[in-house]
This record gives sequence, C-alpha cells and structure tokens, in this order.
Amino acid sequence: MARVFLHPAAGDITLDGVLHALADPARRAIVRKLMVEGGMNCSRCCADMPPSTVSHHHRILRESGLIRSEKRGVEVVNVVRREEIEGRFPGLLAAILNQSGA
Amino acid sequence: MARVFLHPAAGDITLDGVLHALADPARRAIVRKLMVEGGMNCSRCCADMPPSTVSHHHRILRESGLIRSEKRGVEVVNVVRREEIEGRFPGLLAAILNQSGA
Repeated sequence: MARVFLHPAAGDITLDGVLHALADPARRAIVRKLMVEGGMNCSRCCADMPPSTVSHHHRILRESGLIRSEKRGVEVVNVVRREEIEGRFPGLLAAILNQSGA
Repeated sequence: MARVFLHPAAGDITLDGVLHALADPARRAIVRKLMVEGGMNCSRCCADMPPSTVSHHHRILRESGLIRSEKRGVEVVNVVRREEIEGRFPGLLAAILNQSGA
C-alpha cells in the first residue's frame, strides 16, 4: 500500500504545535535546511542521524503543519509550508529560526 | 524551611526551554498578564485554575527562565524576565505573544 502522509489544513495549524515542533535544535536545523534548499528528501537532509530519528522529527514537523511531505516519483520530498505558516503566524518563523545559536 | 526558588542564569536560558514553556495557551496567558501588570501573585494571576495547575505552570515558566519568583513580605510575586529574554532572544517574546488568538 502506498504510504499516505497526513497534513493539517492551514487553518488547523496551532501555535502550540508549531512551538512544540520548533523546541528542538534538530528540528529547527531541518526546517532551516529545507528553507535554504527549497525541498529535500529525508535521508539527504539528515545523513548524520539514524533513520528512525529522522523519521520521528519529520513526523512531528509534518503533524504540526510546518512541512509538507510530497511523493515525487520514487522519493518523498519535504518542503516548508512557509506561506501558510507566515499567513497564520506572521514573523514567527523568522523570530525563532534567526536566533543566534538556535 | 523557607521556600527557595531556582532560576537559571540569563546565559543558561535556552531557546528550547522558552519555546517549550510558551507552547501552552495557559502559560502564554500568564506571561501576557504579568507583562501588563508588571508583577503578580500566582493566585491573583490565575484565580480560575486549581492551585496545583497554577503552581505547575509557574514552575515551568520559572525553570525556562521566563519569569522570576520573588518573595515580597509574605507573598511571592512573579515577574517576566523581559530584558534578559530580549537580550538573549531579540524579538522572540513579541513574535509569539502578539499572535492573534495566541
């Protein structure tokens, strides 16, 4: 069976969920990388982490509404839902991700 | 024995801890109230909550470095460590607390 990814609708993204998802340096690093690269496969994004950890972090980011996981051919590409997050919580992502040492 | 409150030094306040502490609407409401009022006793701040819940939320806020609990005579007054948080994570508090419906 094809793997199905569940994403919250933009209107269902909560501040609690976004803050919880970003309260972890590994997840902030993933979001930052995805914002720079535009979209990335899990394994390319986090080659230094065990696959179960990579999968766990991506699931939390996806369920919070921060990223979207899309099938493109045989691979899954993750992208940050930048405009939707910005529309819902203006300035939040930059205020968190731009902290030095964050 | 007098109750002793433990507070992290400004340099030990982490982004993880602050985001985790603010990933809860009740705790965001407490911080917002304290910022407006300048300083408040737990029970006056949260008269509508069970004391154990009030105490739990204040402990998480205190241990994250967001608030300072000070003995003033017979009562404990909580204040937001506004300047220290701002110095460490510029713009973060406003970006989180000013979200509509936050």
